[in-house]
Amino acid sequence: MAPMARIAPLSGFPEWLPEGRAVETHILRTVQRTFELHGFVDIETRAVEPLEQLLSKGETSKEVYLLRRLQGEEDRTDDKTLGLHFDLTVPFARYVLENAGHLAFPFKRYQIQKVWRGERPQDGRYREFTQADIDVVGQGELPFHFEVELPLVIAEALGSLRDVGMPPIRIAVSNRKVAQGFYQGIGLEDVEGTLRTIDKLDKIGPDGVRQGLQRDNGATPEQAEAALALASITGSDASVADAVLALGVRNEVLEEGLSELVQLVEAAAVRAPGVIGADLRIARGLDYYTGSVYETTLVGHEQLGSICSGGRYDSLASDGSRTYPGVGLSIGISRLVSRLLSADVMRPTRAVPTAVLVAVADEEHRPASDAVATALRARGIPADVAPSAAKFGKQIRHADRRSIPFVWFAGQDGPDQVKDIRSGEQVDADPASWSPPHADRWPRVTAGLG
Amino acid sequence: MAPMARIAPLSGFPEWLPEGRAVETHILRTVQRTFELHGFVDIETRAVEPLEQLLSKGETSKEVYLLRRLQGEEDRTDDKTLGLHFDLTVPFARYVLENAGHLAFPFKRYQIQKVWRGERPQDGRYREFTQADIDVVGQGELPFHFEVELPLVIAEALGSLRDVGMPPIRIAVSNRKVAQGFYQGIGLEDVEGTLRTIDKLDKIGPDGVRQGLQRDNGATPEQAEAALALASITGSDASVADAVLALGVRNEVLEEGLSELVQLVEAAAVRAPGVIGADLRIARGLDYYTGSVYETTLVGHEQLGSICSGGRYDSLASDGSRTYPGVGLSIGISRLVSRLLSADVMRPTRAVPTAVLVAVADEEHRPASDAVATALRARGIPADVAPSAAKFGKQIRHADRRSIPFVWFAGQDGPDQVKDIRSGEQVDADPASWSPPHADRWPRVTAGLG
Repeated sequence: MAPMARIAPLSGFPEWLPEGRAVETHILRTVQRTFELHGFVDIETRAVEPLEQLLSKGETSKEVYLLRRLQGEEDRTDDKTLGLHFDLTVPFARYVLENAGHLAFPFKRYQIQKVWRGERPQDGRYREFTQADIDVVGQGELPFHFEVELPLVIAEALGSLRDVGMPPIRIAVSNRKVAQGFYQGIGLEDVEGTLRTIDKLDKIGPDGVRQGLQRDNGATPEQAEAALALASITGSDASVADAVLALGVRNEVLEEGLSELVQLVEAAAVRAPGVIGADLRIARGLDYYTGSVYETTLVGHEQLGSICSGGRYDSLASDGSRTYPGVGLSIGISRLVSRLLSADVMRPTRAVPTAVLVAVADEEHRPASDAVATALRARGIPADVAPSAAKFGKQIRHADRRSIPFVWFAGQDGPDQVKDIRSGEQVDADPASWSPPHADRWPRVTAGLG
Repeated sequence: MAPMARIAPLSGFPEWLPEGRAVETHILRTVQRTFELHGFVDIETRAVEPLEQLLSKGETSKEVYLLRRLQGEEDRTDDKTLGLHFDLTVPFARYVLENAGHLAFPFKRYQIQKVWRGERPQDGRYREFTQADIDVVGQGELPFHFEVELPLVIAEALGSLRDVGMPPIRIAVSNRKVAQGFYQGIGLEDVEGTLRTIDKLDKIGPDGVRQGLQRDNGATPEQAEAALALASITGSDASVADAVLALGVRNEVLEEGLSELVQLVEAAAVRAPGVIGADLRIARGLDYYTGSVYETTLVGHEQLGSICSGGRYDSLASDGSRTYPGVGLSIGISRLVSRLLSADVMRPTRAVPTAVLVAVADEEHRPASDAVATALRARGIPADVAPSAAKFGKQIRHADRRSIPFVWFAGQDGPDQVKDIRSGEQVDADPASWSPPHADRWPRVTAGLG
């Protein structure tokens, strides 16, 4: 192969060294286990969708990567232009419609995959990243209690990482019906536009939002003030509803929303105390949410923005005769991992799986070392054999450079010996019975210094 | 969301229902565990590479998918056109060069990811599929013994699946030095062209190859006959070398290749009897192999072609001053899974993780059912709660349709009870201590009827 010229990272396409990948994998396995304990089914969808389906949600059209073959036009199958999916919701909706006859509803699925967004390189955003999504989707109907349960699953999944250094999380919830009922109650008809402006509160501040509501959403100064007052309400119990009602607006949609919101925060206060609270500034940009909406921050890393968002939608998909309401959340794994690594929050005990390096006395005796490694692996102990019969000091350095804790010496006259290269302790050992301490068998992820 | 029109599978982009995904996941976890027991490190690379790097190996130019942004030209970063990777070798080579200062050599990595090829839809080939690759790469040098070890790791990884119905495999090996030395010894200078023609033996037969060698590779009838004679040699011990030498050709390259080939098959006969054999028809189309080459067939499914191929290359990559020789193999996971599913070779015991469905007596008592599920999950038992407080018969059918083995009834006056819905047996149970039989706790993959 010809020398590769100009090797350099591509901005927006993050990659990890083995140590970073080990942290990512530990996070993925941990959340996956929680998802499975809750009965979520693993699925994977293709990376591409027809462009018309990618665009059916609107808003993101400029972020899509289209495919074309090098030696041809755009790839068109059955007259469809193909693009890379930019989230896991659109492909899941299509998967549900395509396979509805083979799925049992309510269908609980999780999905861990890469997504792509054709951001301009200079924007410094990720153009490829991994998401871990959970959704429950019903056929025709979906009970409200799932809106309580799904953020609790996320709280449990991310909470399971606390013992390896993960900071606590806070899940802020609101409910679209509260905003919709309230805005309509004060005569603000542009509900979606108002939500989009409120969504900018963190970025442009109350004054910017006040002006935006009047300029872009047809609000009077009084309506803008009321919308801002609503957005300022937070709480973890029924007092949230009291605070909203104290603003003097009443209607059925608002009261239904408040009832749901209070149910959610009260249940959460029992099942995950201190994690989930109402925060009525949470708007979520996307039009298709119809009930609870969620955003998640990492305590101490709030400027990172939401690491897990989602909500309730009444019609994830429709095949014309039936609709499929659902509720789901999506963890931004790459963003989370990037922060945990750069802040040295988590790190692996070693970058290789290997617990034991079997030394090689000379190349003629390599089969004896291979046999030791085979015996160890057969008992579930990750083992590697030294690549060359260098001096033992060099073989020990080979292990040390990889943080492999043990080096094994196959005895030629006497018994085998194994050396803990951290303590220097060396003892007789039999590959058919010796085991490393449990903590050394596989690499573990532990809290870093950050 | 608007109704989705014309939902249909895209040819070349395979997707599995949850049952199929469970089989795929089991296969991936099993091979991954073997790779890690052997000390291979998990890495993941971005899905895109600059086009110039994708094309640096030649041959595959017409199969590349390029990216362009919907609202822009082709995505160009630092003046590079980006394309999706079509294998995991090119991105691994780039990763090694980019990170050489942070990696310890020899570097053993595994990588399980999707790859894409811009095949024409009518060709019926996969355009997206999952590969599981292992490679060892050295800096400047790499001992021969890795060429023996890597196919043995594959034999062990796929052999670990035998107890869930996986058919046996056969790994056929050859050595580029044998072919090169032999062709040069008989005066056939077009070594690469001759290998490409020999590679078509299965497809066009000996007569086709005989003609092709004379028409395309400048062979005399006698040279073509000799090349075919070489390709017909098979064996699992030193007799392979005898058979080659009996053809009357001698030179240093040939003898070095035969020595390596015999070392490989003799070691393999001890460590994995009956799995690995020399087959000198194995040529592999790619130019960059320089030593051992491998192809793997599934016994009873030979017409599927090779499910795992690879070889030794002296220069995976070069940064101008140093080269990185390596040896690697790649399992075609999607092709393998597709066959195992369509032939009903493996199937999961159930499509959902859930071992216990906790029934709900009425919506007021849902918190009691939630508490049971929480207690079970805390002890590592996957549990779900019925989505609605329907009649118990309907809740049991909900479990039955998903093959969930147990339904739990939270006692309102008396003790809780759990019912095995297969046997109908129902017993008192405490969520703090009851456990399902080990075989029922998580779904398992078992041999199917195929």
